[in-house]
Amino acid sequence: MTARFRLDLAYDGTRFAGWARQPDLRTVQGELEAWIPRVLRLHEPTPVTVAGRTDAGVHARGQVAHVDLPSRCDAGRGGPSETGPLLARRLARVLPDDLVVRRVSVAPDGFDARFSAVWRRYCYRLWDAPESVDPLRRVCVAMSRHALDVPAMHAAGQSLVGLHDFAAFCRPRPGATTIRALHLLAVTRLPDGTVEVDVRADAFCHSMVRSVVGALVAVGDGSRAAAWLDGLLRRPDRAGDVFVMAPRGLTLEEVGYPPDADLGERATVARSIRSLPGGPL
Amino acid sequence: MTARFRLDLAYDGTRFAGWARQPDLRTVQGELEAWIPRVLRLHEPTPVTVAGRTDAGVHARGQVAHVDLPSRCDAGRGGPSETGPLLARRLARVLPDDLVVRRVSVAPDGFDARFSAVWRRYCYRLWDAPESVDPLRRVCVAMSRHALDVPAMHAAGQSLVGLHDFAAFCRPRPGATTIRALHLLAVTRLPDGTVEVDVRADAFCHSMVRSVVGALVAVGDGSRAAAWLDGLLRRPDRAGDVFVMAPRGLTLEEVGYPPDADLGERATVARSIRSLPGGPL
Repeated sequence: MTARFRLDLAYDGTRFAGWARQPDLRTVQGELEAWIPRVLRLHEPTPVTVAGRTDAGVHARGQVAHVDLPSRCDAGRGGPSETGPLLARRLARVLPDDLVVRRVSVAPDGFDARFSAVWRRYCYRLWDAPESVDPLRRVCVAMSRHALDVPAMHAAGQSLVGLHDFAAFCRPRPGATTIRALHLLAVTRLPDGTVEVDVRADAFCHSMVRSVVGALVAVGDGSRAAAWLDGLLRRPDRAGDVFVMAPRGLTLEEVGYPPDADLGERATVARSIRSLPGGPL
Repeated sequence: MTARFRLDLAYDGTRFAGWARQPDLRTVQGELEAWIPRVLRLHEPTPVTVAGRTDAGVHARGQVAHVDLPSRCDAGRGGPSETGPLLARRLARVLPDDLVVRRVSVAPDGFDARFSAVWRRYCYRLWDAPESVDPLRRVCVAMSRHALDVPAMHAAGQSLVGLHDFAAFCRPRPGATTIRALHLLAVTRLPDGTVEVDVRADAFCHSMVRSVVGALVAVGDGSRAAAWLDGLLRRPDRAGDVFVMAPRGLTLEEVGYPPDADLGERATVARSIRSLPGGPL
């Protein structure tokens, strides 16, 4: 007998080689899968499944994962509803300070952190003038060498919204589709001067957000016209002239799930269209 | 002939032993006074005067300083108006990434970063639940072990607003007054759960903000009553039962100056009442 738990977590990606477990590298999944069995005194591994597999150096504030735990485990005496808070408290004591599990809760029936998710929202942050630089936030904001025309970036980016083949923006994976539904793209300048690029899609392929921001920055600094950006959507594969932005500016902010009653159905649909190796993140 | 320049700067205080120059320690003043003559190829020292001398580990986002530079210096060919941007550009290339000089501008007549300032605003940030912790902002937010009653803290704190002797909250300095005018104290909880204590005063004495927050936290976690806080203002010297909060939560956010026309007069007044050794910061 196992019970499924939802983990809500946040991390500073600077010193992680990304989400996915890799031998001899410090990764978020590796850290969690090392600590969860240890604090619960389990002898079997506890694989953790995530909504958004982030790359090396990419951060997360609203990451979601799930893990299945045997109901007989140390924490199970009060049933699954007590196991969650207990696991959260124990993890808080042992996890390094760049990784926080904010909440551990019993997952609703049919919940799958990856396949139930209906959208992911990322934010890319940039400073384009020394006046805006805030050393207290430097771990998660990238620098642009040139001043950016934010309204031009926002306007050009609207052509990417909708269902498109984002092949020009994706690192290719054999057999995996690069068709994605981009729900929203908004480029704004905050009062403190920080430029934020917010993107929400059903899912993203590898390096897609950083490539989209790279293309928008080329429009914003005047080195490319909006028509060039439009043209990228008609390219059949990765565009060598699109710069992939540094990971430090990128944060996974939020993952969206359907109402609990629709979870099982959503996961079945998502799994069937995306279960190919290297499928959407 | 010299010209006076205003520096607007920000720093992550984590790896600094505070603002003030000290032999063999890494300080903000030490870093600036080492680099300014070097990038301008000056042989004489260029002492830097600051509005708020922050302690070890305390951060700043809106710090203000001034420096007097000889008009014949390398950067002076286009007059002082060109020297400022040139100095800012050169400093940006050499300063470590935890210290940013956002702007260097010609100071108005009579401007003195310390003695012209009419108020300083600090913010102390706290998390009181794991749900609120954001690893991307961890350098400038402290943890509270207990849940905090924010409205109770705000209400109790209002008794500190006004002109008072803050001796109970100050590390004593011989001959220095501990009378200060606290203009504003506001305790709020942000939507993400962060508790912010905002305080604005004409000036602060040593460790005053961190002691005031320590006293408010004692009220907020229920270990002290509001009446205890009121009573602190009647104590003639430092109160041993007031906890001084960790420096990491504290940031100097802003320094206020009068209109340019009133600068000279303000500095004369401030200097006359505060020129004792160990005077206000």
